[in-house]
Amino acid sequence: MPRDLHDTINSIARRRGFYWPSYEIYGGLSGFITYGDLGTKLKRNIENSWRRHFVHPHGFLELDAPVINLEIVFRASGHLDHFKEYSAECTKCGRSHRADHLIEEKTGLENVEAMGPDAISRLLREEKITCPSCDSPLKEPTMTLTMFRTEIGATGGDTGYARPEAAQSMFVNFKRGYQHAREKLPFAIAQIGKVLRNEISPRRGLNRLREFTIMELELFFDPENPTCPWLHDVSGDNMRLLTEEMEAKGEKTPLETTVGEAHEAGHILTEWQAYFMAVSQRFVTNLGVPPDRQRFRAHLPEERSHYSAQTYDHEVRESWGWTEVAGHAYRTDYDLRAHQEGAGEDMTALREDGTRYVPHVVEPSFGLDRLFYMALENSYERRNKRNILRLPRDIAPIQVSVLPLVTKDGLPEKAAEIHKTLTEAGLVATYDESGSIGRRYARSDEIGTPLAVTIDYDTIEKVTVTIRDRDSWDQVRLPTRELPGRLGNYFDQKTDFTELGEKI
Amino acid sequence: MPRDLHDTINSIARRRGFYWPSYEIYGGLSGFITYGDLGTKLKRNIENSWRRHFVHPHGFLELDAPVINLEIVFRASGHLDHFKEYSAECTKCGRSHRADHLIEEKTGLENVEAMGPDAISRLLREEKITCPSCDSPLKEPTMTLTMFRTEIGATGGDTGYARPEAAQSMFVNFKRGYQHAREKLPFAIAQIGKVLRNEISPRRGLNRLREFTIMELELFFDPENPTCPWLHDVSGDNMRLLTEEMEAKGEKTPLETTVGEAHEAGHILTEWQAYFMAVSQRFVTNLGVPPDRQRFRAHLPEERSHYSAQTYDHEVRESWGWTEVAGHAYRTDYDLRAHQEGAGEDMTALREDGTRYVPHVVEPSFGLDRLFYMALENSYERRNKRNILRLPRDIAPIQVSVLPLVTKDGLPEKAAEIHKTLTEAGLVATYDESGSIGRRYARSDEIGTPLAVTIDYDTIEKVTVTIRDRDSWDQVRLPTRELPGRLGNYFDQKTDFTELGEKI
Repeated sequence: MPRDLHDTINSIARRRGFYWPSYEIYGGLSGFITYGDLGTKLKRNIENSWRRHFVHPHGFLELDAPVINLEIVFRASGHLDHFKEYSAECTKCGRSHRADHLIEEKTGLENVEAMGPDAISRLLREEKITCPSCDSPLKEPTMTLTMFRTEIGATGGDTGYARPEAAQSMFVNFKRGYQHAREKLPFAIAQIGKVLRNEISPRRGLNRLREFTIMELELFFDPENPTCPWLHDVSGDNMRLLTEEMEAKGEKTPLETTVGEAHEAGHILTEWQAYFMAVSQRFVTNLGVPPDRQRFRAHLPEERSHYSAQTYDHEVRESWGWTEVAGHAYRTDYDLRAHQEGAGEDMTALREDGTRYVPHVVEPSFGLDRLFYMALENSYERRNKRNILRLPRDIAPIQVSVLPLVTKDGLPEKAAEIHKTLTEAGLVATYDESGSIGRRYARSDEIGTPLAVTIDYDTIEKVTVTIRDRDSWDQVRLPTRELPGRLGNYFDQKTDFTELGEKI
Repeated sequence: MPRDLHDTINSIARRRGFYWPSYEIYGGLSGFITYGDLGTKLKRNIENSWRRHFVHPHGFLELDAPVINLEIVFRASGHLDHFKEYSAECTKCGRSHRADHLIEEKTGLENVEAMGPDAISRLLREEKITCPSCDSPLKEPTMTLTMFRTEIGATGGDTGYARPEAAQSMFVNFKRGYQHAREKLPFAIAQIGKVLRNEISPRRGLNRLREFTIMELELFFDPENPTCPWLHDVSGDNMRLLTEEMEAKGEKTPLETTVGEAHEAGHILTEWQAYFMAVSQRFVTNLGVPPDRQRFRAHLPEERSHYSAQTYDHEVRESWGWTEVAGHAYRTDYDLRAHQEGAGEDMTALREDGTRYVPHVVEPSFGLDRLFYMALENSYERRNKRNILRLPRDIAPIQVSVLPLVTKDGLPEKAAEIHKTLTEAGLVATYDESGSIGRRYARSDEIGTPLAVTIDYDTIEKVTVTIRDRDSWDQVRLPTRELPGRLGNYFDQKTDFTELGEKI
C-alpha cells in the first residue's frame, strides 16, 4: 500500500512530465533525475514560496556561488575529513554498498550511522549481511569520501570538489555579506542552488539523489545579542518535538508544545532556531502537509554533523515513514573560525562598543527535491477511479486549463482567444481541445491544475464561461470579461472558488 | 578608456554586491565568480525576460536536467572527440595557455582557432610567442579536452563529465518531450541551467567563465514542413548581418536587411532560425542595447561546431569590441541521429501519412553571464561625477528605494510603513535612512533602481509622497494611497514616469 502510492506518484510523474530517471535511453543512472515541464514549473514555484517565507519578509541577502569549490575550502571546513559514509565492498562482484543502510534494512534499527564504525562492523558480521547484488560476503566497511572530485584547469592544476552543501559559499563570502549588509548584524545570506553528493547507494526516487537542489540560509548573529525580533510573531504556533533527551531514551511520542515554550524550556537553544523552525512548519503546511504529519526530531550528539551544537530535523510523514525535508542546525562560530584559520583572514564583526567577535550562525536547510516529492504525495487523492493532485494554488504548475466544450461552431477559436488573454494577463494557462470534456477534466486534475475554464455555446451567446474547481468538481458561471481579474484575485489568495461566479 | 569602463563596472559590482571573484579569501580561482544579492536578482530577472521572449508566448516545454552526465552521452554526441582547445604548455613553469588566444593577442588576427593545428603551430613559431607568465619557450600545442571529469559512485564506477552545454539533455530526453508535446511537431524544449567548461585560460571577467549559466532552446521540426508560424510577426525587423560569404571575403561592414529578406535571400537557412534571431534581437534590445550595437556574424565552415550546418553568433558591441552573447545554430538531425546510434533507441517522429523521420533542430543558445555583464555595461552612465546604471525597469534588481527625508519627526516610521506596504504589494523595495538624501539618491542610482520614493513633511501633513526618476532626476508628487497601484502599472510597462504624478 505505501509502496503503491510511491509507485503511483512516480508513474504520474513520468507519464505527465513532472520527472523521470535521467539517461533513460542509456539505461539510467542511479541518483540522477530529470524534471520535465510540469516539474520545472512546480520546482520554481516551491523556490518562490521558500523566498516568500524565508527571504523577502526579512530583507535577507541572496547569493549565487559556484558548484565547483577549491579543495582548500573543504579542508578548512572539515568536509575532507568528515563528509564520509560507511561503504562495504563485495568480495566477489566488487559493488559497494552503504553498510549502515544494509544493517537498517535487515534489522529494522534506525540511525545505524550514528553507532560508529565498531558497532557497524560487528552488526554486519552478527547479522550475516551479504552483498544485495550477488549474495557474496562483504569486506570490512571503510569510511569513503562522498564528494565528487575533479581537476580544475584542462591540463590539471587545482583539485576541486562539487559542493555537498551551499553553506560554505556563504561562509567564505561572509565579509562581502557583512559589507553589503552595511556591517550590521543580524543579517542572513540565502542561496538556492545545485549540490552534489556522490552517494554510495542512492535510493528512494527523489529522496536520495546524487545531484539535487538545496535551499539554505545562514543567519549571522552576535552571541551576546541573540534576540530574534520576529519570534513573538510565531511563538504561539503549536509544534511537535522529539527532543535530544527523548531521543536518547528512545521515546516515540513527540512532545506537543508551542514554539515559545520549546525555546523557554531549553529544548531549542537559540531564538533564531526556534523562529526558523516555526517558519519552516508554516512553509511546509502551505505546501499542503497538515501540521499533524510534521515533527521536529533532535539529533543525538553522535548523529550530529561535525559543525553543529544542535540539530533538529524537520520530518514529514510519507508513505514509507518519517522523512527529513529540512535540517535546522546551530552551527555556532564553527565555520567562520574554520575559514579564519584556513585563509588567515579576519572573519569578525564589530560591536558598537568597539569589540570584535566571530558571529554565530543558525542554518535552516531544505532539500528542494524532497519537498517536491512531498508536495506531490501529500496532494494525491484517488476519487472515482481518477488521480487528482490537490496541489495548493500558489505552487500548482499550471493555474488554469482552457477547454472548448466541442471542436466546432467557433468554440476552439473563442477558447484560443481567451487562452491568449489569460496568458497575457500573466496567468499560466494551457489550451486543450483533444478528447471528451470529461477526459480533459481528468487530465487537468491529474496534473493538479486548480481551475478549468470551459467555453461553450453560452460563451458565444451570453458571453459567459464556466469555471470548474479541481477539488470539489463544482462549477460556477461568470461573464467572460471578468475572467482575468477574478482569476488574478483567486491566485493572489484574495478570494475562494465560490466567489468566482454564480454556482451552477 | 574601454578598459576603464570594464574596471568601473567590476568595481561597482564588487562594492555594491552584483558579483565578485569567487574564493577571494583564498586568493581567488580563475574562471569562477559569485553573484551577490543584486546580482542574484538581476540574473533572475534576465532569466524571466528570456522566458517571456522565448518560452511562454509559444507554449514551449521547459526541462531541468543534471549537470553531471554519463560519458556515453558525450561519446555519442561527439563532444569527447571535439570539445577540445589548443593548449600550449610552458617548457619551464609548466603553465598551459590557449595557443590560439596567444596568437590573437600578439598579431591582432581573429578566429585563429578556425585556422587549424598546422597554422597554429606555425604562427606560434613564426611570431616567436613565449609563455606569458615567465617568457620561456612553449611546447608544441596539443588538443586538450575541456570538460570537467569525475567518477560517479563514491568508490568509482562510471566516468562522468560536467555538461559543457545544456543541449544534450534535451536530445537524450527527446522521446519524453515528444510524448509530453502529444507527439506533435514542431515543439521545443528550453532549459536554463549551469554548465561547466574547463577553460585552459579563462579571461575577461564574466565573458569566459569556467562555470556559468546557459539558456538554451531546442526547436524540433519536420524538415519536410519547416514553416515557422510566427515568422511573419517579425519579418519586418531590421537586422545587420555578416553572412558566411562576407566573412569569407573578410568584409567588415554588415549587410543591412530585414529578417524576412535575409531568409528569402538564403542568408539564413531555415525559417525557425530567422525567427529566433529576430526574437533574440528584440530580447537583447529590451535588455538595454540599441540595435545599432548588435549584429549577427556567420561562422565559416571551419569555425562551426561539429554538429552545425549554419551558425550565426549574435554579437554586441562592448567596450573591448564585438562580443558573442548568443549562438544560433542549425543542428540538423545530427544530435538525434547520434543518440539513436549511441543508445540504439528510435528517435523518430511520426508524420500524419505514417512515415517516420528524425526531426531537425534549430537552437538559440544564450550565455546568461555575458548578457548580465552586457546589461550592466550598456546601462552605465557617468553624470555629474556620479555612476548611474540605466537598467530597464523590468530587469532592475531593486524597483524602488523608500527614503525618509530626515530621520526624525516620525518620517522613518512612516517610510518603514510605506516600505512594508509596497513589499506586500509584490514590489521589490529597499528602505534606506543612512546619510544625506543626496547620497541616498546616488546609491539608488548606482545600483540601477528606477524610482526613489521620498517621505517628507508633506507625507504627514498632506498624505503625499514624491517619486524621483533615476534617468531624468525629475520628481513628481502624488497621494500616498495611490502609490502601490501606480507603481504596479509603471513596472507592468503600462505607464511612464510622467504619468505617475504631478511634476514638481
